[in-house]
Order: sequence, then structure tokens, then C-alpha cells
Amino acid sequence: MKKIEHIGIAVKNLEESNALFAKLFGKPHYKIESVESEGVNTSFFKVGPNKVELLEATTPESPIAKFLEKKGEGIHHIAFAVTDIKKEILRLKSEGFVVLNETPKKGADNKLVAFLHPKSSNGVLIELCQEDN
Amino acid sequence: MKKIEHIGIAVKNLEESNALFAKLFGKPHYKIESVESEGVNTSFFKVGPNKVELLEATTPESPIAKFLEKKGEGIHHIAFAVTDIKKEILRLKSEGFVVLNETPKKGADNKLVAFLHPKSSNGVLIELCQEDN
Repeated sequence: MKKIEHIGIAVKNLEESNALFAKLFGKPHYKIESVESEGVNTSFFKVGPNKVELLEATTPESPIAKFLEKKGEGIHHIAFAVTDIKKEILRLKSEGFVVLNETPKKGADNKLVAFLHPKSSNGVLIELCQEDN
Repeated sequence: MKKIEHIGIAVKNLEESNALFAKLFGKPHYKIESVESEGVNTSFFKVGPNKVELLEATTPESPIAKFLEKKGEGIHHIAFAVTDIKKEILRLKSEGFVVLNETPKKGADNKLVAFLHPKSSNGVLIELCQEDN
């Protein structure tokens, strides 16, 4: 794994949180993107080599809506950049991690992504992501 | 803020989690450190320019013990590297963030640290950290 690509934070209201995190980082988000298949609107902030992604639910069935209902606002997942996502999926499966997407899917920010179930990683929802070129 | 310095993950058993995260990253932790004032044992993994810190409680009064009791294992905080922590504390206070340590304190990994209360940052416990040279 090459670096922390981003941290995903679940928020109730993207517009309000964009203003809040712009104050935190001293600069505004650089991108807004909807991922319809996930039922989310996202925004991205750059922090040096890393990013912070804010996630707002757009449907009640969205995983973010369910997370907010259960846990409230807060850190939702951590994403690690990998060079070869298919190889990492196979490696991590063989190590006993529960991979939620055996075939990587299209995520936000032009990425191929796959998630590991938190139950196999100390309660942490882990995303693997690879640039989709 | 320069980068995500590290992500802090609360775990029940540091030894077991060290083995688990060594599988995740394909390499072992490079350091173990106790911070008596916080009632924690910590271990660190390098992921490119970033780190992952595992935190285990050593006393029932430890903030990590309380976190585990309330929320279970999972991501506890996100730490951003800053150049001038005192200046950042003043800037963030003036922006309305609730700073828990107006005077930076000594943290793990040779850092001066200060925390922002999650209630002022969308449920996210944020640590600022500066190299303590």
C-alpha cells in the first residue's frame, strides 16, 4: 500500500460541512462529485499528498444514511492507494480479510475501489483504491 | 496543514492487532511506545508518507478504554501535521473550533499535539501535531 489516499467522513449536510472543513484546512474543497450507484454526494479537500472526502447521503438506502442513523457524523472509512488492486484483493483474501468487492468497482474520483469488511479489520472499514486510467 | 500524519485506531489487544495490521500492510509495525499520561500503549506502521497508530488502553480511565466501551474498536482520531501548532491553535479557535489543549502537550512519536473536540468538527476527533525538535 502506497499511502493513505483519503479519509471518508460521513456528514448530514454537505454544504454546511464544506464550509466547516474549508475553515479547518484554510482552503475550500476542489471538487464535488455524485456517485449515484452509492447514493452519495461527495466533496474532496487536498491535504498535501492526501485527501479528505466528505460524504452526504442522497437516498435513505445509501450506506451513508445507514451509518449516520447508527453512529452519527464521523469518520466512515479509510482508503489506501494500491498499485494493483486485483493483486491486493487476492493477497488480502488469502490473509483472511473479508473482501466485500471481489471485483473492483468504479468509485468517486476516477478510482477502482474495493472494500474490506470492518469485522475482519478491527472495526475499520477499509477501502483499497487504484487510479482507473 | 501539511498532510495526514496518522490515523489512530483503538484496539482491544495490541499484540493481536499488530499481527492483523502486519498482514494488511505486508510489513510489521516499526515502533511500540507507551504514553503513560494518556494511559495507552501505541504501535506505528508506515504507509508511504503516512502512519497508522494502534492504541490500546493500559488503565480503565484511559480515553481509549472509554472509547472502546462506548463505540468498540475502530478509528479513534485523525492527525494532521502542522508546521506551527501554536499558530494553528489560535487560527482554529478564531474560526470557532473547540480546542481541547490550548497549550500543546507532549504526545507519542516525538510530537507536540493538540486535539479539537469532535462536537466542533462533525463528530471527528482531530489531532494537530508538530515535530518536537
